[in-house]
Amino acid sequence: MFKLLKTEGKARRGDFKTVHGTIQTPVFMNVGTAAAIKGGLDSFDLKEIGCQVELSNTYHLHLRPGDKVVKSLGGLHKFMNWDRPILTDSGGFQVFSLSKLRKIKEEGVYFQSHIDGHHIFMGPEESMQIQSNLASTIAMAFDECVENPCEKDYAKASSQMTVRWLKRCKAEMERLNSLDDTINKKQMLFAINQGSTYADLRIENMKQIADLDLDGYAIGGLAVGEPAEVMYSIIEAVEPFAPVNKPRYLMGVGTPENIIEAVYRGVDFFDCVMPSRNARHGTLFTSIGMVNINNAKYETDDSPLDPNCNCHTCRNFSKGYLRHLFKANEILALRLAVIHNLSFYNKLAADIRCALDNGCFEDFRKENIGKLSQRI
Amino acid sequence: MFKLLKTEGKARRGDFKTVHGTIQTPVFMNVGTAAAIKGGLDSFDLKEIGCQVELSNTYHLHLRPGDKVVKSLGGLHKFMNWDRPILTDSGGFQVFSLSKLRKIKEEGVYFQSHIDGHHIFMGPEESMQIQSNLASTIAMAFDECVENPCEKDYAKASSQMTVRWLKRCKAEMERLNSLDDTINKKQMLFAINQGSTYADLRIENMKQIADLDLDGYAIGGLAVGEPAEVMYSIIEAVEPFAPVNKPRYLMGVGTPENIIEAVYRGVDFFDCVMPSRNARHGTLFTSIGMVNINNAKYETDDSPLDPNCNCHTCRNFSKGYLRHLFKANEILALRLAVIHNLSFYNKLAADIRCALDNGCFEDFRKENIGKLSQRI
Repeated sequence: MFKLLKTEGKARRGDFKTVHGTIQTPVFMNVGTAAAIKGGLDSFDLKEIGCQVELSNTYHLHLRPGDKVVKSLGGLHKFMNWDRPILTDSGGFQVFSLSKLRKIKEEGVYFQSHIDGHHIFMGPEESMQIQSNLASTIAMAFDECVENPCEKDYAKASSQMTVRWLKRCKAEMERLNSLDDTINKKQMLFAINQGSTYADLRIENMKQIADLDLDGYAIGGLAVGEPAEVMYSIIEAVEPFAPVNKPRYLMGVGTPENIIEAVYRGVDFFDCVMPSRNARHGTLFTSIGMVNINNAKYETDDSPLDPNCNCHTCRNFSKGYLRHLFKANEILALRLAVIHNLSFYNKLAADIRCALDNGCFEDFRKENIGKLSQRI
Repeated sequence: MFKLLKTEGKARRGDFKTVHGTIQTPVFMNVGTAAAIKGGLDSFDLKEIGCQVELSNTYHLHLRPGDKVVKSLGGLHKFMNWDRPILTDSGGFQVFSLSKLRKIKEEGVYFQSHIDGHHIFMGPEESMQIQSNLASTIAMAFDECVENPCEKDYAKASSQMTVRWLKRCKAEMERLNSLDDTINKKQMLFAINQGSTYADLRIENMKQIADLDLDGYAIGGLAVGEPAEVMYSIIEAVEPFAPVNKPRYLMGVGTPENIIEAVYRGVDFFDCVMPSRNARHGTLFTSIGMVNINNAKYETDDSPLDPNCNCHTCRNFSKGYLRHLFKANEILALRLAVIHNLSFYNKLAADIRCALDNGCFEDFRKENIGKLSQRI
């Protein structure tokens, strides 16, 4: 289903066919945790900003409104009125970062809801069942996501358990895809590489999961506290062992420069809350660097945020108006800022694809590294 | 500038020509206090929901970002990228309802900003200057808005002062419209009828302001605590003394039924925060009554909020999805709910116009009174 169209060094230009349409890679997926984009964007806005893949969360949707409710309403696509691919995160990361009083056992994780404290058990089978009810295009394997730094012994045992969990995920997904009342019988499953910051554990883990022939391979447990250089070195270590004919997804990453550097090292899929979270605080990405729109110097500035951006916000409103909306605590501030930042990330991925198509990705990388993260 | 197209009893169907386009009346104006609609709607959304006139607020925009900032950015129309009519409220009501430590004198009002406590003076001239800087289509006279109930002596003195203030407003607006650097040299001015709940004071006041030949006549100081029946009786009392060839505007009103009843009594213009405020709490107007979308019975309801509504929300999303967004505290809940409620109000005004055009307003009134406000 993944077709490699072109390469430049390790960087890959590809396309990935799914039942909900073909994804052009490298791709940045737009995060809609609870089936809605923060800042008040709906599925029509997602199309307007060039989103190819929407990403929702198993943990959040299981708690609220409940995956069975979503199933009874026809699955996530019908629920949020979005006909393009959806990837659902497995809930693993959220169980470890949000829930209370968790207990990890071989069978899965016992934890309490962060909303109302009720007791929940989630293991590989439960995660697959929830994601099958949600009927996403791509499900993620249920994994343990350790914090960095992490003791090597713990990281080793955890990554080994994640492989055993992956086998159970795969078997359960195959079973679910064969059931009559499953909404998406062609739901795909991506494995997740773990092993903390230990290259040898990461490589050993990648070899084992590669053998299991999943639809895609994610690198998880990065961008959780370690320096960017460590993240890059882990990507470089595992990349040679990731199947060439499957997409690679670096979970939860990152800055525009992180994305360029990871594409350079062979990654195809990305997601991150950074563009929408930064937008909500008035930190806006532009083609010439980062803007804090709260700055007084923008008070009477009638120019658009980014002269090189064609998004709804930049086409129609001035920096002066945007700054006013932030100062007046208007929800419209969040919406226009998120529209811009997500458009910027989707355009960044499109520009990367264009550079790869034209064989000039290395020039693109040199031109943009250092520039995009400077504060202007 | 106001053309009476048709009447049915006291009810009037008209159009009102302005430099920013012709307003079809009766009209409901959509409130964007600080040059943005609550719930994250921008000027493009306003067009989508059928808004003819946007209403902004002198007091709020004077405090933030400052009317001189708005003027330097080309006036309100350019600031918020809206090319249709804008009415600016004079700030009178907000000075009396929001500001602290106010002192009312013949020259105007001394008060403190509700944002940072700084001392401000606003009189008729200052209000006109601010509204001229904002460059709205229609400015409102600066008035004292008393609370109901109000002692008759106070109401009498206050309404008499409001007439003296109106003369000063008119003179100042004429001066401002003749200045070279004024953005909208054809800014119109509406008078505001006051006199609390005393019909004789109201009538006396209306006769005096009618003589001054303003562009329109508002009825202010209602819907501030008195029963609806009192409001209707005041409208009935003053209506015969309001100029026939000028639009009448009932400020801050009201429920769908209030609007129908006021049109029935000869009113042309309306504005109210009720549709957007109710929307933000999940209370939604529909053609068959009022819905509280938080109700558990909507959890798995895949039907649209109002089968007779063609708004973005009703065309594309289910009650189940809307309820989920409210429960998950997603900003998108507010946006979709406000889009619906404002669409409902704009459609209500359009339906009233259609009924008047077809000579069946009395039937329309009988059919809808009682129905629209029932909780379903």
